[in-house]
Amino acid sequence: MKTRSLLAVFALSVIPLIAAGVHAKDITHDAEYYVIEAQNGERWNADDKVIEQKLSEFYSRNGNKPPNIIYILLDDLGFGEIGMPGLDVIRGYSTPNINKLAQSGMSLQRMYTEPSCTPTRVAFLTGRHPIRTGLNEAKVTLVGEGLPDEEVTIAEVLREAGYTTSHVGKWHQGDIEQSFAHKQGFDRAEFPIHQQAQLALMNPQAEQSDITRGMGIDGDFPRELFLDDTFIPNSSGMLTGVELRDGKLYEVDMKPGEVWTQEKYQQMNKRYQASVLRELGDLATRKEPFFLNYWPLYPVSFVRNDNGKFRTRNGGSFTEAMIEVDDWIGEIIDEVDRLGIAENTIIMVMGDNGTMTQYVGLSGASDRIYRGGKGDHLEGGVRVNAFVRWPGMIDAGSMAEDIFHVSDLFTSFARFGKAMDEVPRDRVIDGVDQTGVLLLGEAHGRRDYVYIYEQDSLKSIVKNKFKFHLPPPMTNPILSAEFYDLYRDPREERPEQSIKMGTWGSGAFGGMLKRHMAMKKKYPDRKPTYATPYEGIENLRPETLEMVEAFKASKKVGR
Amino acid sequence: MKTRSLLAVFALSVIPLIAAGVHAKDITHDAEYYVIEAQNGERWNADDKVIEQKLSEFYSRNGNKPPNIIYILLDDLGFGEIGMPGLDVIRGYSTPNINKLAQSGMSLQRMYTEPSCTPTRVAFLTGRHPIRTGLNEAKVTLVGEGLPDEEVTIAEVLREAGYTTSHVGKWHQGDIEQSFAHKQGFDRAEFPIHQQAQLALMNPQAEQSDITRGMGIDGDFPRELFLDDTFIPNSSGMLTGVELRDGKLYEVDMKPGEVWTQEKYQQMNKRYQASVLRELGDLATRKEPFFLNYWPLYPVSFVRNDNGKFRTRNGGSFTEAMIEVDDWIGEIIDEVDRLGIAENTIIMVMGDNGTMTQYVGLSGASDRIYRGGKGDHLEGGVRVNAFVRWPGMIDAGSMAEDIFHVSDLFTSFARFGKAMDEVPRDRVIDGVDQTGVLLLGEAHGRRDYVYIYEQDSLKSIVKNKFKFHLPPPMTNPILSAEFYDLYRDPREERPEQSIKMGTWGSGAFGGMLKRHMAMKKKYPDRKPTYATPYEGIENLRPETLEMVEAFKASKKVGR
Repeated sequence: MKTRSLLAVFALSVIPLIAAGVHAKDITHDAEYYVIEAQNGERWNADDKVIEQKLSEFYSRNGNKPPNIIYILLDDLGFGEIGMPGLDVIRGYSTPNINKLAQSGMSLQRMYTEPSCTPTRVAFLTGRHPIRTGLNEAKVTLVGEGLPDEEVTIAEVLREAGYTTSHVGKWHQGDIEQSFAHKQGFDRAEFPIHQQAQLALMNPQAEQSDITRGMGIDGDFPRELFLDDTFIPNSSGMLTGVELRDGKLYEVDMKPGEVWTQEKYQQMNKRYQASVLRELGDLATRKEPFFLNYWPLYPVSFVRNDNGKFRTRNGGSFTEAMIEVDDWIGEIIDEVDRLGIAENTIIMVMGDNGTMTQYVGLSGASDRIYRGGKGDHLEGGVRVNAFVRWPGMIDAGSMAEDIFHVSDLFTSFARFGKAMDEVPRDRVIDGVDQTGVLLLGEAHGRRDYVYIYEQDSLKSIVKNKFKFHLPPPMTNPILSAEFYDLYRDPREERPEQSIKMGTWGSGAFGGMLKRHMAMKKKYPDRKPTYATPYEGIENLRPETLEMVEAFKASKKVGR
Repeated sequence: MKTRSLLAVFALSVIPLIAAGVHAKDITHDAEYYVIEAQNGERWNADDKVIEQKLSEFYSRNGNKPPNIIYILLDDLGFGEIGMPGLDVIRGYSTPNINKLAQSGMSLQRMYTEPSCTPTRVAFLTGRHPIRTGLNEAKVTLVGEGLPDEEVTIAEVLREAGYTTSHVGKWHQGDIEQSFAHKQGFDRAEFPIHQQAQLALMNPQAEQSDITRGMGIDGDFPRELFLDDTFIPNSSGMLTGVELRDGKLYEVDMKPGEVWTQEKYQQMNKRYQASVLRELGDLATRKEPFFLNYWPLYPVSFVRNDNGKFRTRNGGSFTEAMIEVDDWIGEIIDEVDRLGIAENTIIMVMGDNGTMTQYVGLSGASDRIYRGGKGDHLEGGVRVNAFVRWPGMIDAGSMAEDIFHVSDLFTSFARFGKAMDEVPRDRVIDGVDQTGVLLLGEAHGRRDYVYIYEQDSLKSIVKNKFKFHLPPPMTNPILSAEFYDLYRDPREERPEQSIKMGTWGSGAFGGMLKRHMAMKKKYPDRKPTYATPYEGIENLRPETLEMVEAFKASKKVGR
């Protein structure tokens, strides 16, 4: 009951503010945005004039066109793993090309992602917390789920504004047709349906190296005791890489009966890099601006490549793949410069979530800086390096300590792309406009908060330098919640300091929690979107068709 | 028995190599040095020619004089706490002046110290592991111990070679006359006898803030129950700051009966900074080169200064003091530049050991990067930032991943100072000549190992990227020892990976251990040096004399 009356107060106090929004006034953000807008709106209005001036000068220099955008999202790299040469001694490898990119642009030092691949990518694509879209996590097996048609992606937003859009690499937005890249705004698309758990772990080499188990070659379990063949996914039937050709999607590089291997995984990685370079050359010749979305599968690689070309003093399999990707990023930057499009092309490189701490000994990755890794709401799960280059527009060698959430790129790219009108007005857009930080520098941000979910559960809330770990259900929120000062205790290891913040924090964070929940009540989360997997692909292999049939059958018995 | 025959083999194999040493051939190093010299000696010989060429060119440019050396050693700052702007977001404060120094010189990225203040300073002063000198740790109270006459310090070495030597700030080498700075090679000396535990914790303000206990104002314990007045040190009688005037040592700033306060501690810090600037002006006018040894007491400060000038977003008391010291370092650099002595002056700034993790909530310091802090053999206890500037001689903005131990500065400064002949030949000098790294750059180092002691106990051994935690006594060394890959697991948190290194590591590190112990047998550790405390100080207060008498009495009953 108390919640209801609070909601009423909230509705009264917040709704009028929505109309007072500055640049794109009718976009609906999360409640917290309006709390800070009420206090900082005038400053933001002043900033907006400078931003508009800078942008319009750019547009006129650029034939009235918005900039090209190359967005490179790297898998499973927590903060400190790339682009910070001072930390080479912590991790035993260098990323010279990303270091150079960092030096030629801005480092977003407090970039928050979601704690895992699918949700971070959902947040980037839609500008929304994944839970709002109904897609939190795409599992390793067939799921018959994915990003729904109804979501509006940054590719759709930019395409509507005249961009040519191209996606290459990891996608991981589900296995149903409407979730595929070409159905979500990309004119060109080349991607694997699933993720590296299938591509880099579920193969014979990984099992031979005892990195994975259960794929069929470890032990000879008698058929009479092993009654359920559907329990362990039959990876041989799962789709691998697909490509869009003349508007139709085809699986490539797998013949019926063929077995996916580590070698094929390596080839896939190299193929995507080659495609990106080819795309870049083509896109640069076009009149329209382009949005090139490149999501490499590396550095995730569990088997060390044996060619020895990419050795590191760390030696881990991820680190070797990482410096190979670093080389590739160098190639892309060189190509952008060579094509003469440096000045009108934004290049952004970042990680998608923390490292996989489960594989420390093998991968060479580790939660070196912040504690926790992939899957965790701890800083180690959601803090990543992020670097943006835009010569002449973003200060070279600059850093910003403003809080970012990956969803902010949706809104900021939309603004750069003169596409703010294409951002949907009928739903909550969590991403806020951070063009101020990028164009005016540190301390021009419009976010001092992040809500951190682990899949369906809201696990913590960050507000400027403080972090609130939500207490377990059915416990006293004041006594069981933990509070952290992220500068004094960045590894969130000393909850005994909580009482110093909890005295005021339980009220302050409690208010944030209530406002967030009230907004969710007003704009309910979408339910997951289900459909038959693999529809719309032209050349399904017999073993794939069989797998889909088994999946459908399993659904009938209520799995 | 086995050890003895091993020793014989060792003596046969190592002793001849000693004679083959390159630059200062008759200096005796630890055994491990000869193992690597045998494999790298030729390369080092070639390096030596280039180094000599560079140095002789410098000397002729500089009127045949060696360079001035300003060595600034900061208290309790683990790796990542200073000079790395990318980590501002981890700790919530910036050190702009040290950052600038780092950019204008070389960052020694793998600098090892000892885990605590006294031992690190002993190692720097003598070029030797503290345990060899008999001085491992100077406790908070009167001890009647200290650095012995027989030890030869870098100040003595450089003075013999013609330097004017000056010490300002923390000293912490004991409370007996022979251990004082002016008896250990410094022409000028201004320092507190003890450390910040006395100066910054044992005062009424610290007790009022509940930071320290037992100093006399917390509770009114009946005299009849509290029988021993000597149990809790009577800090009112302990000597504070002393200064050398006309060859004699005087306590300054304390009248009989006066109480030491936090305010006096702050004044002492400011006074030392003023003295350094005054010294610098004077030393720069002299014909001789100078060695200015400045060891600030800050950032250690447990009570926040209330003037509000040095606020940080972290807010911890250490961090506020740190940015004040950073300002001071800026003043020193500016003064060096203003005096026109930049080209012939080496400026080095580094931490002396890890942060005091015991005071995280208050100090704002934390073991953010490596695990562990002051007192620990873990990387967090012994890894620090170290920056060296020498315009025209050391590459600006360079970094080196070579392993350094703080004792290497003894030998390297001696070489820069044309003072190699003054380095003693009758004892083990642990510090190796690292001028190659400084003048030729990364990968020209002469050390790939460190032996890490916690006071009397050897706790771990580092060899290139591997670290061996010695097993507890009386356990099976192969099964109980822990091995770490410092790049894959820099926080030494996952001993379950040990088996992968232990298969070969127990033999390889076991050999290092045996060689080190054999060398200690040949060159035994000095026993601690005892004498009456506070001798040689002209103006002891009555309460100080009383305290010395009580100390002497306690020694008679065998304390």
